[in-house]
Amino acid sequence: MPEVVFPLDSNKKFTEQQIVGHNRWHPDIPAQVQVKPGDSFRVHCREWFDGAIVNDDSADDILNAPLAGVHVLSGPLAVEGAEPGDLLIVDILDVGPIPQEDSGPLAGQGWGYTGVFATRNGGGFLTEQFPDAYKVIWDFQGGKATSRHVPGVSFTGIVHPGLMGTAPSADLLAKWNAREQALIDTDPNRVPPLALPPLPDSAILGSLSGADFDRVAGEAARTAPPRENGGNQDIKNLTKGTRIFYPVFVEGGKLSMGDLHFSQGDGEITFCGAIEMGGFMDLHVDVIKGGMATYGVSENAIFMPGNTDPQYSEWLAFSGTSVTLGGEQRYLDSHLSYQRACLHAIDYLTKFGYSPIQAYMILGAAPIEGRLSGVVDIPNSCSTVYIPTAIFDFDVRPGKNGPHQVDPGMGVPMSPA
Amino acid sequence: MPEVVFPLDSNKKFTEQQIVGHNRWHPDIPAQVQVKPGDSFRVHCREWFDGAIVNDDSADDILNAPLAGVHVLSGPLAVEGAEPGDLLIVDILDVGPIPQEDSGPLAGQGWGYTGVFATRNGGGFLTEQFPDAYKVIWDFQGGKATSRHVPGVSFTGIVHPGLMGTAPSADLLAKWNAREQALIDTDPNRVPPLALPPLPDSAILGSLSGADFDRVAGEAARTAPPRENGGNQDIKNLTKGTRIFYPVFVEGGKLSMGDLHFSQGDGEITFCGAIEMGGFMDLHVDVIKGGMATYGVSENAIFMPGNTDPQYSEWLAFSGTSVTLGGEQRYLDSHLSYQRACLHAIDYLTKFGYSPIQAYMILGAAPIEGRLSGVVDIPNSCSTVYIPTAIFDFDVRPGKNGPHQVDPGMGVPMSPA
Amino acid sequence: MPEVVFPLDSNKKFTEQQIVGHNRWHPDIPAQVQVKPGDSFRVHCREWFDGAIVNDDSADDILNAPLAGVHVLSGPLAVEGAEPGDLLIVDILDVGPIPQEDSGPLAGQGWGYTGVFATRNGGGFLTEQFPDAYKVIWDFQGGKATSRHVPGVSFTGIVHPGLMGTAPSADLLAKWNAREQALIDTDPNRVPPLALPPLPDSAILGSLSGADFDRVAGEAARTAPPRENGGNQDIKNLTKGTRIFYPVFVEGGKLSMGDLHFSQGDGEITFCGAIEMGGFMDLHVDVIKGGMATYGVSENAIFMPGNTDPQYSEWLAFSGTSVTLGGEQRYLDSHLSYQRACLHAIDYLTKFGYSPIQAYMILGAAPIEGRLSGVVDIPNSCSTVYIPTAIFDFDVRPGKNGPHQVDPGMGVPMSPA
Amino acid sequence: MPEVVFPLDSNKKFTEQQIVGHNRWHPDIPAQVQVKPGDSFRVHCREWFDGAIVNDDSADDILNAPLAGVHVLSGPLAVEGAEPGDLLIVDILDVGPIPQEDSGPLAGQGWGYTGVFATRNGGGFLTEQFPDAYKVIWDFQGGKATSRHVPGVSFTGIVHPGLMGTAPSADLLAKWNAREQALIDTDPNRVPPLALPPLPDSAILGSLSGADFDRVAGEAARTAPPRENGGNQDIKNLTKGTRIFYPVFVEGGKLSMGDLHFSQGDGEITFCGAIEMGGFMDLHVDVIKGGMATYGVSENAIFMPGNTDPQYSEWLAFSGTSVTLGGEQRYLDSHLSYQRACLHAIDYLTKFGYSPIQAYMILGAAPIEGRLSGVVDIPNSCSTVYIPTAIFDFDVRPGKNGPHQVDPGMGVPMSPA
Repeated sequence: MPEVVFPLDSNKKFTEQQIVGHNRWHPDIPAQVQVKPGDSFRVHCREWFDGAIVNDDSADDILNAPLAGVHVLSGPLAVEGAEPGDLLIVDILDVGPIPQEDSGPLAGQGWGYTGVFATRNGGGFLTEQFPDAYKVIWDFQGGKATSRHVPGVSFTGIVHPGLMGTAPSADLLAKWNAREQALIDTDPNRVPPLALPPLPDSAILGSLSGADFDRVAGEAARTAPPRENGGNQDIKNLTKGTRIFYPVFVEGGKLSMGDLHFSQGDGEITFCGAIEMGGFMDLHVDVIKGGMATYGVSENAIFMPGNTDPQYSEWLAFSGTSVTLGGEQRYLDSHLSYQRACLHAIDYLTKFGYSPIQAYMILGAAPIEGRLSGVVDIPNSCSTVYIPTAIFDFDVRPGKNGPHQVDPGMGVPMSPA
Repeated sequence: MPEVVFPLDSNKKFTEQQIVGHNRWHPDIPAQVQVKPGDSFRVHCREWFDGAIVNDDSADDILNAPLAGVHVLSGPLAVEGAEPGDLLIVDILDVGPIPQEDSGPLAGQGWGYTGVFATRNGGGFLTEQFPDAYKVIWDFQGGKATSRHVPGVSFTGIVHPGLMGTAPSADLLAKWNAREQALIDTDPNRVPPLALPPLPDSAILGSLSGADFDRVAGEAARTAPPRENGGNQDIKNLTKGTRIFYPVFVEGGKLSMGDLHFSQGDGEITFCGAIEMGGFMDLHVDVIKGGMATYGVSENAIFMPGNTDPQYSEWLAFSGTSVTLGGEQRYLDSHLSYQRACLHAIDYLTKFGYSPIQAYMILGAAPIEGRLSGVVDIPNSCSTVYIPTAIFDFDVRPGKNGPHQVDPGMGVPMSPA
Repeated sequence: MPEVVFPLDSNKKFTEQQIVGHNRWHPDIPAQVQVKPGDSFRVHCREWFDGAIVNDDSADDILNAPLAGVHVLSGPLAVEGAEPGDLLIVDILDVGPIPQEDSGPLAGQGWGYTGVFATRNGGGFLTEQFPDAYKVIWDFQGGKATSRHVPGVSFTGIVHPGLMGTAPSADLLAKWNAREQALIDTDPNRVPPLALPPLPDSAILGSLSGADFDRVAGEAARTAPPRENGGNQDIKNLTKGTRIFYPVFVEGGKLSMGDLHFSQGDGEITFCGAIEMGGFMDLHVDVIKGGMATYGVSENAIFMPGNTDPQYSEWLAFSGTSVTLGGEQRYLDSHLSYQRACLHAIDYLTKFGYSPIQAYMILGAAPIEGRLSGVVDIPNSCSTVYIPTAIFDFDVRPGKNGPHQVDPGMGVPMSPA
Repeated sequence: MPEVVFPLDSNKKFTEQQIVGHNRWHPDIPAQVQVKPGDSFRVHCREWFDGAIVNDDSADDILNAPLAGVHVLSGPLAVEGAEPGDLLIVDILDVGPIPQEDSGPLAGQGWGYTGVFATRNGGGFLTEQFPDAYKVIWDFQGGKATSRHVPGVSFTGIVHPGLMGTAPSADLLAKWNAREQALIDTDPNRVPPLALPPLPDSAILGSLSGADFDRVAGEAARTAPPRENGGNQDIKNLTKGTRIFYPVFVEGGKLSMGDLHFSQGDGEITFCGAIEMGGFMDLHVDVIKGGMATYGVSENAIFMPGNTDPQYSEWLAFSGTSVTLGGEQRYLDSHLSYQRACLHAIDYLTKFGYSPIQAYMILGAAPIEGRLSGVVDIPNSCSTVYIPTAIFDFDVRPGKNGPHQVDPGMGVPMSPA
């Protein structure tokens, strides 16, 4: 086991740890951990809500989730010699749930959750159809997930970090704040909001205190979106064995990570989201000096996925186009066409006895593939979603004998918005 | 070889064939071919421009492409007993270039093309960056494609039909025309247009003539977009061995197909598009009576992909978010984030000596994967594009020694808009 | 379609064709076809018994198979400039059943067969358990095989040539004859025989005639075994897209091929064997001058398999060790341990309602994997055999509810030895 | 983490642990651990020589390896209710090196070894070519193995137990002893020996002592070979996620396991062998009552491999036939043909600068595939070995420019026999 450079004690809150991480992006959050190119090391990660979501049969915790406090991130880690313009090579040597702890109150201790926010908290990808708060608990065993809330399905986890990235420069941060505020200003009272501006409330900023804390808390970017620095990309393919190349914007790069997922379908369509958990990452870092210019990587991560993702060979796929449920034609809207493909999958699965929210949860948590199949055929884009048939313990294919009927069991806990 | 129920003679124009197909969607285009559930049969398909694009080193034919005449489709085929509400099972037994003809003037005779339209003709996914007309010729050998216009790359074709579907009912057609016209009306003079209304010019309507022809030509939907009937979905995974389930909207289903692709990356981002060719399809059909209600399939195709797609195990991937090149923040725009991911891939490949349009053509033609990785993290969606590294005959991975330099050769033919 | 350099007319016997091939190995069989490095071309291949096996429900043709006449091979093809010591690069551009003919009396016209010889004719891998003659007919549709003699199973063909190779030099041929005769001499009356000596009866030697024919017929090696020149290797992975490197022993290399298989499990354990058919191969050839010394390839083929083999992700596997059924311990006998693994698979499948010979036929024809798992653990080697579960139309996995029961139907035709 | 039911302290010898395992098979070795159907639990495993092999640059420890003491096994575990005739379902939930310890003197603490015995100790698969003792140390990082003794190669581990099985009944044990002694008697002075008879010296028998110990030590079977109970099968595909079905011969089944491998090529051709390590297994057990008769499983394990094995899509393959290096023809000897295929691979790799023993070590440790390609084509069987090209950090394919040259570095430590 590599040396633990960022430890977390499962019995303590995120802010009471030996090294306190952060939940905002800002160049002035100090790096409290130093590593060198060529180093391998372990980082512990806390689940994104720092334990606010519990292993029970109610969605009240999702309904009342402390949104201001996310995502609790491990870091920043400074890499010796990394300078703006370099590419930071990050190898994911391993990633998994909390090691040696398979039961307990923290997601990652043998279990995880998939939630859907109430619309006022951001909803999910299909918030018009699912406006309330919902939660599903998944149990981990042998690398597989099963749920008492969603019978008849089990799948091998495609474990990955939802969020990892380098710190922005001051200029880059200013750019983020300006452009996101401009978007908010177009509809400032929208529910859910168009974007999330800096929010001093609940900010955690590592070792900062006093006036520095206040200044940074007022400027620092929220962690919800992915941006030029990587960030909350929610790419399910950043699995063990993946090599990622991040642009470096500040001295040392200041790498941070968190929001681990035991599994996720493309899109993390449930938003709250994937199968959330705490755990660990073993990382190896290196630097390509001047790599941003050499390889034309001005922003966002490039990566080479690992080679041990779960393998499936039979898929059932659904397609959608960019016409709203109400029948309105939109112009090449791949977001909408993916929504429609997902809704088609849900319609289908409900014919097998699942409730719509159970079907939605499967799409959010299982390793489904979401593809941009057609993006030019005006006015309709075409998106497709692929479900591995082997995750069901019954035959999920269409046939002449009609669909098998699962017993939906207790179903998905819901708390009305 | 199954019986050829829809033959095409490579020496004749599409309108001079024994059976004349169609290039518009309308319930009243008569089915001239009858098949039965359980039948297997062969259909010939002409490339979508009926031979207007030639194997040379100029893009003038793309610049002046006869857009009003696309897509020339084989069909409609009536399936005995299929009624509205049924699901039509279509098995793709085989699909490939024009059999027994590997040289000649028609795309599909041993070669195919990838084009990018000038902006005024619809452009491509990246028309702001590539506003002119471009063309690349690909040669087929042993199931692989190579091009004199794009050195250093070869890949196994992922052969599939770009377009297949059933006929709309009169009601469904009316709905299409209404909603697409409504979209056009929001910006009727836009270049490229928002959608394509019915166009009697160049309409081909099978055996229709006289007043019927004129009426149908004025009502029939263009074939560019995918819609409830399947249509121009451009799903690269509809390969040999795929089983597709189409909703049936009219008596007999009236199945049509065409726009064959030797290969395509997710999105068909070049628009003109994939590697275009004529060829053949061997199909088997069957019917699930009442299947639309039984399986909740009210529209669009569902499918199970074949199991002999080209296999790759190493990928280089790029990510993008929904911020415009000009720095404007958009709200969860997966279309934009896929554009940005593709532009990142192009920036990268140009560091290896490719021209930007060569890199674009690779993304359009090779079996790249385009995924909707994050669709909920306001305000940024995250899309990713995966390129198999084995398609290059050099090491395309980032490293400390800098990029290998390919000789770009004669490059991609271009005709200024 | 590449130029057909070795045509076969399905209506004529192998010896009545425009170019007559051969069924023995000898350096003096003249090459009647000349190709150049860089050429692509098509070769027709006849099924190995030249049509003696028919599409019916009797195994009499297998019982009386004209063994002296196999394998009818297409070639030899001389490659310009190839000299002893070179490596001949052979790319399999395509391989398949007889094109454009999907019904008719010849295997390869939409159908193929798997046979098991009676013991006196060579038997099969499990001839002690299956001493008679058996035959199964497989129908091809959409790249998949099904059989009226083996219900409940279908699989995508893994199409390949069973036999391909270069001509031996005179010295090499003499070495073959000497060592094989030495083996025969250890038990000359064994049934089945230990090896097959030269046999003038039924020899086909291309354009040779007169005294040359007689001399060569008396010296030429039989085609049953694989040898230094490649030959009857029966490697199921020589599929479309494969690049093979053959040693060159005579001027021009003199490449020949045949014994096409629609599908085969590792080992071709049924012997007569795989799913036998005639068809075509599209090939591309090139030469590495002096490649044998440069790459240390003194004999046997090396190769890089294609990337479109049928993909499966779930397997049911059986193991065996080198103890005979009678309980005798053998020393590291991988042949025996593979027999035992196959017998275990047969025992298992019979619990689902199959007859033992039906199970055996599945193992011979379907794309099973046979692995040498342990070869050092004295005194027992361990071999394993993997069956893709998706080839069955029922759940073939062990469970608590016991095995599903298939209706074995008419079963496998058998003719008593 | 499941409860550890069989713990090992890395600082103590195998015989000094809280629970002492065993290194022989006998029904009377008491089960000191009890589990129930449905239980999940963790078992620690010691490397097979209990730490006698060290991380240095000498092969003296291999030369003098304490062979009488192998394999140190964890167990037996009794499964409540399991009776003779049942099938024991064993799910490998996880398997890996010693957790939380990545440096130290024990194989499994961040490193492992591949050895080749001197001929007098059993040699390896190619002992005629490699008669001395050799050792290679592999370092583990991020699931990958690299070696200072074999430059230019790295690969993702295919982690699995080399040995797992149930206890034999008294009758079965007697049968083993009889048949193996009969084999030994055919050539009792052979070096290496044909088989290994019971050996009281160095026997470890769990909690047994006194007269019971002496009796059992004189009867108990050695652990080297795989047998009806599973045992030392060395099947590289028993990876995480695998479900195995073992026959039950005694009350409780008495399951034992050990000989963990970080990686291995098919055959474990180096014998000492794979990449050896200690570590842990997380297991889940269940029982199919009467399953042996229900599913026809009288002996040996059947299994369904996991779905996260390392994926490769490009392979370089070598073939061999059953002719000895000296030119003697053997009859359908798949063992020999696999030897010849492996020797061909070694000949090839030496052209790239590797020493023969380096090439041999690659074949023993990397995830190569060894297939029984042809087993009926008298007199030659054909075996093939497939090497994934991506494990080399250079282009290992044959080409016109000749082989790349690696610097072999310090090479493989050797100790003359």
